[in-house]
Amino acid sequence: MSDTRTLFHFPLDPASRQVRLALGEKRLAFTEQAVRYWERPAELVALNPSGLTPVMVEGDLVLCESRAILDHLEETYPEPPLLGREASERAEARRLLQWFDRKFDYEVGGFLLHEKMEKRLLGLGAPDLASLRQGREALRSHLVYIESLIGQRDWLAGQRLSMADFAAAAHLSVIDYFGDVPWNDFTGVKTWYMKLKSRPAFRPLLADRWPGLAPAPHYDDLDF
Amino acid sequence: MSDTRTLFHFPLDPASRQVRLALGEKRLAFTEQAVRYWERPAELVALNPSGLTPVMVEGDLVLCESRAILDHLEETYPEPPLLGREASERAEARRLLQWFDRKFDYEVGGFLLHEKMEKRLLGLGAPDLASLRQGREALRSHLVYIESLIGQRDWLAGQRLSMADFAAAAHLSVIDYFGDVPWNDFTGVKTWYMKLKSRPAFRPLLADRWPGLAPAPHYDDLDF
Repeated sequence: MSDTRTLFHFPLDPASRQVRLALGEKRLAFTEQAVRYWERPAELVALNPSGLTPVMVEGDLVLCESRAILDHLEETYPEPPLLGREASERAEARRLLQWFDRKFDYEVGGFLLHEKMEKRLLGLGAPDLASLRQGREALRSHLVYIESLIGQRDWLAGQRLSMADFAAAAHLSVIDYFGDVPWNDFTGVKTWYMKLKSRPAFRPLLADRWPGLAPAPHYDDLDF
Repeated sequence: MSDTRTLFHFPLDPASRQVRLALGEKRLAFTEQAVRYWERPAELVALNPSGLTPVMVEGDLVLCESRAILDHLEETYPEPPLLGREASERAEARRLLQWFDRKFDYEVGGFLLHEKMEKRLLGLGAPDLASLRQGREALRSHLVYIESLIGQRDWLAGQRLSMADFAAAAHLSVIDYFGDVPWNDFTGVKTWYMKLKSRPAFRPLLADRWPGLAPAPHYDDLDF
């Protein structure tokens, strides 16, 4: 299908992490290029006018934004399926993709990652405590919701592992890098995350480190 | 495939409009049910935990959020194709879906529709003039970008009409309802929008009226 595959990504970007997990799960080799997207590097902006990660170049094909990449991977390399085989499974996985990429990202990441990560990367000063509190409260509501889903199903979208699990884990894992996930209050979510963390596709994410941003001590621990 | 198809939508919601355009273009009949999503009606929340529109029920299948519905329609009723036939066409259409649903929505709709529509629906008082100005400035940047794409191509994502056109038109059409699109400064965009506006699928959108929110006089005029 392609001679070369290159992923332009930022290690602590939840959208990039979803693509890395899908590539790993489908056992597709790729060269990775970490980019400082906030500096709007010329190479990245030439590929993606939004200037955002992830961007994947596969042979002649340029794929911008996580959903375009994930849909392409699913269409081109259907095994193992990561969106489900039945229409109802796909609908549920896609509902949850939107949930995490939009609602969780807006209500949780928009506060916690902005305060703890983006402000550091951009030199914008200390975190605002009220924003951190707001993000942490929203995170708890989302964990309650994930716990309720996990209580009824093997995986988030149903009986099979899907992109919904990777989307949730990608967002949570970056927040976990900064130590903000109250795992012990949500044992169902913790067990689900432990299963994901143990998959080979997850290993590269646990090895991520960014200069000046140290992870929480338990971040790469499989028995956290 | 299904005995019945019902779309729960809000007429002035850009995400709902994308689905209505896709259903119209694919000539799929549906019953529509307009919902006041901000009041969190029980029937809607029971179908979609996010409480957002659009939700489509097709036989036994519940599809929540625009992208899940659009992907389902494309998979189940592939003619006419609205995401392109080639991988590169699909990548470009999907890049632009993200552009409008995320970037445009955040930078333009988040200001203009919040100030002019949501504040009215929720009884939150008069529009904030600085926010309106910020939204209008961002809108001009986006129109410059759309104009540049239209200058190189027949349609937004390439040589064929696609969901990218419907996404852009869905977002712009709601802003146009409130009279905020400076069409005469962007003649390429205006011609492109005129072509879309003339399609049968667009007609129901031009007939939309919401109590207490009157549209701009040119809103449903095909020769605006």
